[in-house]
Amino acid sequence: MKTTVAIIGGGVSGLMLANLLHVAGIESVILERHTRAYTEGRIRAGVLEYGTVELLRKAGVSANMDAHGLPHGGFSLLHEGGKLRIDLTALTGHGVMVYGQTEITIDLMDACAARAIPLIFEAENVALHDIDSPAPFVTYTKNGTHHRLEAAFIAGCDGFHGPSRQAIPGAEASALEKLYPFGWLGILADVPPMDHELIYADHPRGFALSSMRSATRSRYYLQVGLDEKLEDWPDARIWEELSLRLHNGAAGHITTGPALEKSIVPLRSFVCQKLQHGRLFLCGDAGHIVPPTGAKGLNLAASDVTYLFEALVSQITQGDETGLKTYETRALARIWKAERFSWSMTMLTHRFPTQSAFDRRMQQAELAYLAQSQAAQKVIAENYIGLPY
Amino acid sequence: MKTTVAIIGGGVSGLMLANLLHVAGIESVILERHTRAYTEGRIRAGVLEYGTVELLRKAGVSANMDAHGLPHGGFSLLHEGGKLRIDLTALTGHGVMVYGQTEITIDLMDACAARAIPLIFEAENVALHDIDSPAPFVTYTKNGTHHRLEAAFIAGCDGFHGPSRQAIPGAEASALEKLYPFGWLGILADVPPMDHELIYADHPRGFALSSMRSATRSRYYLQVGLDEKLEDWPDARIWEELSLRLHNGAAGHITTGPALEKSIVPLRSFVCQKLQHGRLFLCGDAGHIVPPTGAKGLNLAASDVTYLFEALVSQITQGDETGLKTYETRALARIWKAERFSWSMTMLTHRFPTQSAFDRRMQQAELAYLAQSQAAQKVIAENYIGLPY
Repeated sequence: MKTTVAIIGGGVSGLMLANLLHVAGIESVILERHTRAYTEGRIRAGVLEYGTVELLRKAGVSANMDAHGLPHGGFSLLHEGGKLRIDLTALTGHGVMVYGQTEITIDLMDACAARAIPLIFEAENVALHDIDSPAPFVTYTKNGTHHRLEAAFIAGCDGFHGPSRQAIPGAEASALEKLYPFGWLGILADVPPMDHELIYADHPRGFALSSMRSATRSRYYLQVGLDEKLEDWPDARIWEELSLRLHNGAAGHITTGPALEKSIVPLRSFVCQKLQHGRLFLCGDAGHIVPPTGAKGLNLAASDVTYLFEALVSQITQGDETGLKTYETRALARIWKAERFSWSMTMLTHRFPTQSAFDRRMQQAELAYLAQSQAAQKVIAENYIGLPY
Repeated sequence: MKTTVAIIGGGVSGLMLANLLHVAGIESVILERHTRAYTEGRIRAGVLEYGTVELLRKAGVSANMDAHGLPHGGFSLLHEGGKLRIDLTALTGHGVMVYGQTEITIDLMDACAARAIPLIFEAENVALHDIDSPAPFVTYTKNGTHHRLEAAFIAGCDGFHGPSRQAIPGAEASALEKLYPFGWLGILADVPPMDHELIYADHPRGFALSSMRSATRSRYYLQVGLDEKLEDWPDARIWEELSLRLHNGAAGHITTGPALEKSIVPLRSFVCQKLQHGRLFLCGDAGHIVPPTGAKGLNLAASDVTYLFEALVSQITQGDETGLKTYETRALARIWKAERFSWSMTMLTHRFPTQSAFDRRMQQAELAYLAQSQAAQKVIAENYIGLPY
């Protein structure tokens, strides 16, 4: 099989890229390791920057998001001094859109089907070949049969554990990483959220987040130790702990219900500083991971995809290689700023096992300062809605 | 001897308070442990916030500052990405004044002499008595003679090592502290500064600061390890290191000359959370220390003195105790914010022995973000010129 762009990974990055390329008249084939059902079932982020919303519109896959997404003009920081609302719209002129990554994935897969973009599920043993030649190719097996996909370019959209990053010489050695001494315990439930906007809570017992996927589906998170096990967190204990961290009089009432999904995910910052090699280009989690505080993961994938899409179009339609040559530099500049924001929001709102009373006081002083300074609120807001591409 | 306010310590805090009280018609006596020559000779800070400038004017001791001080409308951050000027005036409507603490001390002592405010040098063995009674008193010895000073109130302006903080039960236990793993090596020389404004340099070899006391007197600093000894830093080595850290093409030329003074001071954050007990109130370094990055030490003393002065006037002239009762709360709110700013500027621009490559990248990303965000520049600027009293 031959195509112009071989896309490894059928998550949001790969699906967005394929749909953008389709609109621009460029062929691609997507290889996805899992089944469609598995891919649809993954619970991920749900806060879209203004730029990500625009990108989905540009790719022509925004109908459901525009109909069912929840435009948010702000969010709140709940701390010992009270509840501080960051008025995104007043501070920056833009808001964000709450619309689940799961729903975006479904919309994008439906669009692939409607547009006859080849999306091959259960493509196993994916391997990249001759990526520094003009004729790279990808091999994989499906139902026991060996396949070969030839392409002019390869987009590595296969997440943190995929084979694409491993195919770049020196990629792992170039990576910088920070592991945080805690994780997030997430719970999804079909109950109305406690507030119509997100609430990030800095609490002596640990960070908590009140979030949602819709007006009837809530997503809550709790900071937990890395040694915590899911079996020690029955639903009742999760709701009780959320109530302790999110109720301080200023926040609303939590409606509880049975968990649709529960998980514990450790927090990590990771940046591979080699995002391209020959004809291979990495997008999204294949190249970088942010801690979820600030909801940058999906949105960084969107800016990577935008840069790569623009570069591929220039190269393919005009023979202009500039965009492809500078892809890594352009992507990393925005990635590092989003890493910085995610890191700083994590450092501000979480309890650290080794933090001193002075360190804690610095967090409290920053929150108190934030409450009084419009400039400091604007710094948070302009990062939250997304820095310029 | 009897007075209304016994002021322990003849540094800037005590001298400012005495002069403000004098203008308001309230008597005080200042006890200073050292000689006038020693007090005049101490080399300290030199960047005055707008509010500190106003306070000196209000105390009627601003003639020399207004004639010889250098109004600065901005300062620069020199980093690997270039030289970023923080335009204080454009961002906040205010600038700062460069005028040495040594000169302020002399002006204030001269004003005490002209106003016949008792300023007793070489007052040794100062001890505080009955501070939680309505009739506190201070004892000291001078030239071998024992003295007793009775007062309605005592202001502890005697610096970090003075007896006042020790007189407050539980003060030490209430203190929060952070010791930084480095110090500042300072050099004072009668040479023109390399730039007419301050330059804070984030350099791979360590932080450096180009500062000045006048158009012909320069003050430079270098981040050095805590194990560094002054005898290992002859003038030539200091100038060479400054040149490495401050010359990157974007900064100017350093004029070298013999050192008038050299010193190494470790960096520390310290806040005593008990600033008052009975009739005793702490101001300035007696209650808190900031690392010098951002020049907040003297300016925090000025806000403490302002709060205490206003409270004493209300109590003495109107019998209103509110200000005195809330002095600690009011002072601490501003102290913590200045501690936060000094800590964050230190964390941003210094090399830490244990910092990872990721941590270093966070500093670089913050500087890169700062260069592109007016909101982030305003956060720095509004803290630098001084948060509202």
